[in-house]
Amino acid sequence: MTDYRRLRVALLGAGAVGSQVASLLRRHGDELADRAGAHLELVGIAVRNPDAPRETDLPRELFTTDAEQLITGADIVIELMGGIEPARAHLLHAINSGADVVTANKALLATHGPEIFEAADQVGAQVYYEAAAAGAIPIIRPLRDSLAGDRVQRIMGIVNGTTNYILDRMDSEGAEFADVLADAQRLGYAEADPTADIEGFDAAQKAAILASLAFHTTVPLDAVHREGITGVDKAMMDAARHAGYVIKLLAVCERLTESSEVRSTSSGVSRYASAPLLDNRTAYRDAISVRVYPALVRRDHPLASVRGANNAVFVQAEAAGNLMFYGAGAGGVQTASAVLGDVVSAARRHIAGGVGVGESTRANLPILPIDAVTTRYQITLEVDDQPGVLATVAGILSDGEVSIATVEQTVRSEPVPGNGGAGAEPASDTVARLVIGTHKAREANLSATVDRLAASGVVERVVSVLRVEGD
Amino acid sequence: MTDYRRLRVALLGAGAVGSQVASLLRRHGDELADRAGAHLELVGIAVRNPDAPRETDLPRELFTTDAEQLITGADIVIELMGGIEPARAHLLHAINSGADVVTANKALLATHGPEIFEAADQVGAQVYYEAAAAGAIPIIRPLRDSLAGDRVQRIMGIVNGTTNYILDRMDSEGAEFADVLADAQRLGYAEADPTADIEGFDAAQKAAILASLAFHTTVPLDAVHREGITGVDKAMMDAARHAGYVIKLLAVCERLTESSEVRSTSSGVSRYASAPLLDNRTAYRDAISVRVYPALVRRDHPLASVRGANNAVFVQAEAAGNLMFYGAGAGGVQTASAVLGDVVSAARRHIAGGVGVGESTRANLPILPIDAVTTRYQITLEVDDQPGVLATVAGILSDGEVSIATVEQTVRSEPVPGNGGAGAEPASDTVARLVIGTHKAREANLSATVDRLAASGVVERVVSVLRVEGD
Repeated sequence: MTDYRRLRVALLGAGAVGSQVASLLRRHGDELADRAGAHLELVGIAVRNPDAPRETDLPRELFTTDAEQLITGADIVIELMGGIEPARAHLLHAINSGADVVTANKALLATHGPEIFEAADQVGAQVYYEAAAAGAIPIIRPLRDSLAGDRVQRIMGIVNGTTNYILDRMDSEGAEFADVLADAQRLGYAEADPTADIEGFDAAQKAAILASLAFHTTVPLDAVHREGITGVDKAMMDAARHAGYVIKLLAVCERLTESSEVRSTSSGVSRYASAPLLDNRTAYRDAISVRVYPALVRRDHPLASVRGANNAVFVQAEAAGNLMFYGAGAGGVQTASAVLGDVVSAARRHIAGGVGVGESTRANLPILPIDAVTTRYQITLEVDDQPGVLATVAGILSDGEVSIATVEQTVRSEPVPGNGGAGAEPASDTVARLVIGTHKAREANLSATVDRLAASGVVERVVSVLRVEGD
Repeated sequence: MTDYRRLRVALLGAGAVGSQVASLLRRHGDELADRAGAHLELVGIAVRNPDAPRETDLPRELFTTDAEQLITGADIVIELMGGIEPARAHLLHAINSGADVVTANKALLATHGPEIFEAADQVGAQVYYEAAAAGAIPIIRPLRDSLAGDRVQRIMGIVNGTTNYILDRMDSEGAEFADVLADAQRLGYAEADPTADIEGFDAAQKAAILASLAFHTTVPLDAVHREGITGVDKAMMDAARHAGYVIKLLAVCERLTESSEVRSTSSGVSRYASAPLLDNRTAYRDAISVRVYPALVRRDHPLASVRGANNAVFVQAEAAGNLMFYGAGAGGVQTASAVLGDVVSAARRHIAGGVGVGESTRANLPILPIDAVTTRYQITLEVDDQPGVLATVAGILSDGEVSIATVEQTVRSEPVPGNGGAGAEPASDTVARLVIGTHKAREANLSATVDRLAASGVVERVVSVLRVEGD
């Protein structure tokens, strides 16, 4: 074999991803050496308990509790511990010891990314994190490098496998949220505490990472508007299907331009300073919005056909047009693929020399609050089925600057046996369902209008308010 | 603005892609500088005739006929001339002058890639070619870097927009090949001389590039088996639709493992020496096959829904599982996006220092001839509708080691008025159509068997023989 230089690789964490990374590093060592131009020597694996039973054939002597010592002298450090501490401290230590670092830690990058990137810049190290968003799907390099000469206008991502699995089964089986969630937990698609997934926290972290890359702007996690899927029920799913839509939890990263306004620029102290957050009515020329919520997606949109626990990222760029990246969003061995790609890249960079390329954040675009975002909406109301109700509802919408695109009215009688059902003459106890599709409306206007609808005498119940994305 | 270092960018060619690249470089200059960490100064555009009328607002003084002088002293050279010469000479000159090079020239890379890569290695330059395969779709970096730690098993790509446009319209409109081709030429989707597209030459070049990256092996263009779509007619399209398939021109790059055999290794003289080509019966452990042909793809496969002139690359990797990359495969501004991503990458590397990372080719896997490839087939025959014909056909297939998976027989009477049509009793002049789906069979066996079928007394006509991919 070629006489390659040896690079010392330290692994932090031996969970589902870490054990696969270690195993593949050892199993495909010669192959990876040929690709990297360096022998990748796994020098140790830092874990809390080296003697814990593990489903791997990794030799016991690789394991250590002394992460700090393992990191010292390593050329490449792979952080797969998850969580903020001690992962953050270890990564900073690794960077300051001269190592390049590979991490899949989206929570850490979404909250402490600037600190990590800044430290890497100081010493010329490089941070690799292909596995931190959308698992095995190569999306970081396409955004960071391939699209670096283009202007990304919009990303719509299905970036959380658990919620897509749940929504997909609700859609295809007509099942209720709680039943599918319980099933997903039993099958290992959802964790015992599913909060991070179903409340959209995981997707929000990934959205912050993708938006930072796409818009060359440091997007802090708290600038990401987040709603989960716990409010999505069978009735909403059925109504969506009936109207030709499917409900997906989307991470939407959008660039907005108001050509007539003057951009409010703020010059950050650090290259990685967070972008300024605009309030609702500040004028801007270019701004961005980053948000996670369940939204209606037309059945013929490519994202609608993303089934099960898969992920997909749909990117619209000024020059490139529409692109989509599809694949497994999670899973130990799938994520290990992304991690190992980063390890090979880090090794190649080590051999090639030069300093790391920092993150591109200098666009520093201001970030809009959700109230200033405009989207289309679908509002479903239960109203008294009486003359003049539609006129009242339309008037409230019009007063609120929400323009109606479509209205569908269905009459639903109370289920009195022998009554004749939906075809009977409307009586005063009959309820009509109004499904209103709006033109693009400003969120602030929309939510104020929905409040006024709910308080009006004619609306019995606001059944659902969903944004429509991807038209 | 930040005081960036200036990098001199030379552009060779001002066609559909080149003029977009020049225009975007000038229009988005400040934005690109922030991303690259360097000011990208377009110092000149080499063309044959600087005074030719152009649909751009580029200043006349940028244009020159003296490519050699333009290249000398440039930090980054973008080659968008196409063709082999003088593109090859210019790229080598640029590399030897110390520039990093960006090219979209698939023909050049598929035929002279090793020479270009070798020259870059000698001086530590880097060759970028994201635009050389699948246009704006980021596929080079995902294969080269993101999947560098994984083992790609298979790529199925729709990598030629013209042929996908033609096949898609034949499928959706039931139109004939010649009519759609004429229309495509009128609309600018196909060139006046459509040979490169419809005969699969363009797809074969891209297949060679993708396979080289995926399998870390230098795949020469003449090792790519190539068939075009000129033989695909309306009847084949209709039959495919009837059977739940669509016909797509696929670039298939496949890794094959025969676990019991010993791999025939050949150690090339150069790192970029072409992989050895195996003959039909040489034993191998790991080998690859690269081929372009129209194939049947099931309607529910993600590739089946790639419409119009779009491209998509479906990748199966050992750890990552199934991935798909989708987007525009051609177009001036779309391809310019990929080129500019490479320019920004090249600039970042210039600033970071270090030498270029060469191509990964050391796996040097042997390449199988088409005869040794196994796929499933669908064979459509017109046979005499007489007792015993099916038995004869089945016998010939069995003798040829081609195993039958499905058979569908339809009776087609000659269209005699008043005869009663397809429901009539079979007569001696009635023709039956047999559609035979095979299990995986070796191409050599299959083609010999089809020859024997054609020569047998019972087969009137071999209507079509199509491979089935992606099951």
